Amino acid sequence: MTEYKLALVGFGGVNRALAQLIAERNENWKTELGFTLKIVGVTDLFLGSVIGREGLDAALLAKLPAVKGAMAQLAGGEADALNEAVIKDSGADIIVEATFTNPVDGEPATSFCRWALERGKHVVTTNKGPIALHGAALKALARSNNVTFEYEGSVMSGTPVIRLAKQSLAGSSIVGFEGILNGTSNFVLTRMEGGLGFAEAVSKAQELGYAEADPTADVEGHDVRLKVVILANELLGAKLKVSDVTCSGISSLDLGDIEKARQDGARWKLIGAAMRHADGSISASVEPRLLKHDHPLSGISGATNAVSFTTDLLGAVTVSGPGAGRMETAFALLSDIISIHQSVAHN
Amino acid sequence: MTEYKLALVGFGGVNRALAQLIAERNENWKTELGFTLKIVGVTDLFLGSVIGREGLDAALLAKLPAVKGAMAQLAGGEADALNEAVIKDSGADIIVEATFTNPVDGEPATSFCRWALERGKHVVTTNKGPIALHGAALKALARSNNVTFEYEGSVMSGTPVIRLAKQSLAGSSIVGFEGILNGTSNFVLTRMEGGLGFAEAVSKAQELGYAEADPTADVEGHDVRLKVVILANELLGAKLKVSDVTCSGISSLDLGDIEKARQDGARWKLIGAAMRHADGSISASVEPRLLKHDHPLSGISGATNAVSFTTDLLGAVTVSGPGAGRMETAFALLSDIISIHQSVAHN
Repeated sequence: MTEYKLALVGFGGVNRALAQLIAERNENWKTELGFTLKIVGVTDLFLGSVIGREGLDAALLAKLPAVKGAMAQLAGGEADALNEAVIKDSGADIIVEATFTNPVDGEPATSFCRWALERGKHVVTTNKGPIALHGAALKALARSNNVTFEYEGSVMSGTPVIRLAKQSLAGSSIVGFEGILNGTSNFVLTRMEGGLGFAEAVSKAQELGYAEADPTADVEGHDVRLKVVILANELLGAKLKVSDVTCSGISSLDLGDIEKARQDGARWKLIGAAMRHADGSISASVEPRLLKHDHPLSGISGATNAVSFTTDLLGAVTVSGPGAGRMETAFALLSDIISIHQSVAHN
Repeated sequence: MTEYKLALVGFGGVNRALAQLIAERNENWKTELGFTLKIVGVTDLFLGSVIGREGLDAALLAKLPAVKGAMAQLAGGEADALNEAVIKDSGADIIVEATFTNPVDGEPATSFCRWALERGKHVVTTNKGPIALHGAALKALARSNNVTFEYEGSVMSGTPVIRLAKQSLAGSSIVGFEGILNGTSNFVLTRMEGGLGFAEAVSKAQELGYAEADPTADVEGHDVRLKVVILANELLGAKLKVSDVTCSGISSLDLGDIEKARQDGARWKLIGAAMRHADGSISASVEPRLLKHDHPLSGISGATNAVSFTTDLLGAVTVSGPGAGRMETAFALLSDIISIHQSVAHN
């Protein structure tokens, strides 16, 4: 039985949910997936760190109190985040990176990924920063070290998007995509259709935990812009930088715009999109678009995310599902590990 | 470079589109997919048959006139359909079965699949009959002969459904699904929402080529029922027979029902569904269901198909796309061949 040793970097809701899955399902995975997982290290800026080369108790980790320095309560634990030691020296095969997204330079997550890949460790991450800002360099590093670098969860959490496009649609070229890639802004637009003003709808989203205290990155399209860069570079073979994607958000829309759209049989949606033109160039944007009711994305309501691929042989193929959530995003990490297992078995 | 030798069984629109793809893209597939395809035999009840062990001209085949016995025009061709010779003796590695669906006993397609699998040939098919009626036996036969049996195109043509669920959602249990799995009936319902009566909407569908001269199998749910059996057995591990699926169609709906639904903020859709219950039993049905506007399938209009999976870790994940079409279905066959290539490379 193959066993992979994991180091978890960042121990917020997502990696905690992964620990919970390991605690509950490891036995079943032997037959269902053909491998088991063992956590050999955890590090977190707030909680501290722990290394246990023989395997840490996943159930205990999943229940660790969310208080500063809590890792020090564990045998061998520390109140400090010994990131470098956990990544480099815990004996992990796979580094599971789930720290916060830094949209400016992708750090420190990018360094975490680089340290791991340079040492021949596979990396799975849910973090948009390293992929959107340094994806090409990190992928090259993974190739040259003969390891796998997977990041399904960086777009639409566990809903299969990158893997759907690259595996299930292989053989049919993707010429472009349009996506509803931010649940907060889609929730706000849906509530505005129900009559709430923009500010009230944002407050409602905050109340329900969909929006941050500062909702700017969500409603102004900055979050979507990173996802557009990731998808365009991955699926269309683009080499976009974040600044190549034009970006406007939904804060300019008022109830009059929403009502006028309704009267015209249409809906406003914040759309992240990219397409390859006949001359081979690729353009990409984030902007509110008026969608008619027969558009595949017009029926996507609330916090749900969706992306519609334009393909040469199938026309439009659309996938929708959760775009966030701790367990949903932990599943993305699991699906990345399944993918590593397949490529390891293959080679 | 791996080359697979194909025998095409049934040469209607779908296998003809596959021949066209081979003629146009074989060179590109060397780098894109890692293999090329060579057609070594074709057989069709109406057109006749031809065997060419050194490879037939795919472009010439794609343009063959659609007249009775036309294969006799080709070097080595015959006006008769020598099915057995083409399947057993053409030297094919993969049998590409795309004959008509027989919903009663799945013949002759089931025998075609069996002959091929018994002789250690991989089989890809778009045909619902063999899978819905004899899927378990054929899969067992494939396993015992160490070959691959793929049928993505039997549900929703080339839109990835089986592969999405089994590969991209691996690790998250599927506990049920609901699908809009018949484009004709969905088109009819969409037109009825536009004010056409049932009979007029069916005529319109026939005019546009969506419906057969006899639309019974589409509008009464019989086509969907086969697809529900296929998906339930494949994705939920059920062992359903066709008669286990309750079935009622859309012919009982009138404009009054459609209008009342609209007033209630809902829409009628013909839904094929199955779910696993807490006691492990599985129930399955085909019936018109009233969907509220926030249901993931309520926005699926016209001839588009969609299926929404209920999963334990992700909640609802929905994929929509074409449910028919010659090139769309030919892509399903290509995606099945890609899958064979991966499992051959793997073993």
